[in-house]
Amino acid sequence: MNSDTVLAFSGGVGGAKLALGLTRVLAPERLTIVVNTGDDEEFYGLHVAPDLDTVMYTLAGVVNAETGWGVAGESFRSLDMLKRYGAPTWFQLGDKDLATHILRRQRLDEGRTLSEVTEELCHRLGIRHRVVPMSDQPIRSIVETDEGDIAFQSYFVERKCEPVMKGLRFEGARDAAPAPEFGRALHDASTLVFCPSNPWLSVDPILSVPGVRKAVQSFPGRRLAVSPIVGGKALKGPAAKIMSELGYEVSAVGIASYYRNLVDTLVIDETDRELAPSIEALGLATHTTGTVMRTLEDKVSLAREISRIADVG
Amino acid sequence: MNSDTVLAFSGGVGGAKLALGLTRVLAPERLTIVVNTGDDEEFYGLHVAPDLDTVMYTLAGVVNAETGWGVAGESFRSLDMLKRYGAPTWFQLGDKDLATHILRRQRLDEGRTLSEVTEELCHRLGIRHRVVPMSDQPIRSIVETDEGDIAFQSYFVERKCEPVMKGLRFEGARDAAPAPEFGRALHDASTLVFCPSNPWLSVDPILSVPGVRKAVQSFPGRRLAVSPIVGGKALKGPAAKIMSELGYEVSAVGIASYYRNLVDTLVIDETDRELAPSIEALGLATHTTGTVMRTLEDKVSLAREISRIADVG
Repeated sequence: MNSDTVLAFSGGVGGAKLALGLTRVLAPERLTIVVNTGDDEEFYGLHVAPDLDTVMYTLAGVVNAETGWGVAGESFRSLDMLKRYGAPTWFQLGDKDLATHILRRQRLDEGRTLSEVTEELCHRLGIRHRVVPMSDQPIRSIVETDEGDIAFQSYFVERKCEPVMKGLRFEGARDAAPAPEFGRALHDASTLVFCPSNPWLSVDPILSVPGVRKAVQSFPGRRLAVSPIVGGKALKGPAAKIMSELGYEVSAVGIASYYRNLVDTLVIDETDRELAPSIEALGLATHTTGTVMRTLEDKVSLAREISRIADVG
Repeated sequence: MNSDTVLAFSGGVGGAKLALGLTRVLAPERLTIVVNTGDDEEFYGLHVAPDLDTVMYTLAGVVNAETGWGVAGESFRSLDMLKRYGAPTWFQLGDKDLATHILRRQRLDEGRTLSEVTEELCHRLGIRHRVVPMSDQPIRSIVETDEGDIAFQSYFVERKCEPVMKGLRFEGARDAAPAPEFGRALHDASTLVFCPSNPWLSVDPILSVPGVRKAVQSFPGRRLAVSPIVGGKALKGPAAKIMSELGYEVSAVGIASYYRNLVDTLVIDETDRELAPSIEALGLATHTTGTVMRTLEDKVSLAREISRIADVG
């Protein structure tokens, strides 16, 4: 184990915010960010990796600050033309964003791995910290709903999470392996940090990669998660709806019941201070602080707090 | 032979103009436009077919009227981002234009032929006349220069035709075949029309497809070409420079010496009326009319004149 190194698990928007904070607190050699690729999808033959892109754009400072995803000042001229050609355009790919997917497709076709492509794109955008996909093999999140199985982006974007979720499965996971740098960090890191991402949509796909769940369960270092539910509501996205459909209590306690056996400490917002005893009854320690990240200062502050309680940084 | 049907040979801008005129004079079932694909090139793994695109955009009425190529009102946001990623951007692909190349790549990867993809894209843009690539197999024009061999677009766009041209060759031609609809039209048409495109850059690649040059030479119907040189100057592009480098007289007479044995009649501009005897001395008939196409009216007028002398339409 390499003391004072952090492996952060991230999905899209919420995870990316804390990841940005962590990059301001930890030197590049002391932080690896592993990102969910279960919601990757092909559009027009291009490889779109929404969570990787959100983390990358956020760390590079080019993200659309209003939405938390996509590139700032984006336009949709290519999409207009694609529509004219009769192509499906429910997934709103911007002109700048398309450049990412075009280059990713090109590099993958040239035989590079998704890890290598991600490293190249991040490097070009000036990102110095290591961002890695959960796997170099394709794993696709399939949402099992009351209307049947739906590919993740169709469920999430096209259908706006309307169908009732009964479960998720991760196609291809059985034949996949952790991306090399992810596997290395999982072995070497002193601390695991689960960013405030959706556990079912963003964290579970990462844990579905063979060997990962066990490695987390038996991880010898510190393990923390930040609750994405604050005051009984999701800060972003459909986490609350999904928790309710999957039979979880929509609260930080519900998040705790997901993370038991996976982490030792759940970081909860001050709003949820009174839930600490119920969470501790599940066998998790709690740490209470401000977890809502609106400004860069919020992000750095939460990252600093996490580094402090994990005794890194 | 199907009387009253025209097969028009076209390169980019100049050819597209007459092609547009012909579509206003001839019903869809009576016109096939075969387009040079020797200057096709891959950028970022996408398949760019500049002449096909120019013809398609022109016939669809979405072409940039100022340049004669590209889409009207184009923007370059994707390109800005590609540049940020360090990708080469000397070939200025616009955002709308990229949609074409993305879909073409996708369809080709799905196993469609270039003919099928072209038909689909044209149909989606509302084009009712048949536009076909010269071949469904890749043929690449290589420019032999005083600085060595240069791929066509590198020569044409990146190097702005500066190197002295010594010759051209068409890689892959030997293993290619005419696209099915091109082959059919070459067999069935009553008239061949060589649009005012550059003979060496745009027409010669089409003639390099196995069987095509012979079929043109022994074609039993009417055969006309429109001179792209007017008053000793190229209306567009590097034709004059290339003619001079290849040892041709830079005039309609030089064009005639290229087309002898290929066509019976050279259509020349009124400006070049006094050249008719020299052209006729080469064994070609001449027809003198206004060939400079600035307005749609010019294009339709020249097309009508050509239909008249070819006795079609």
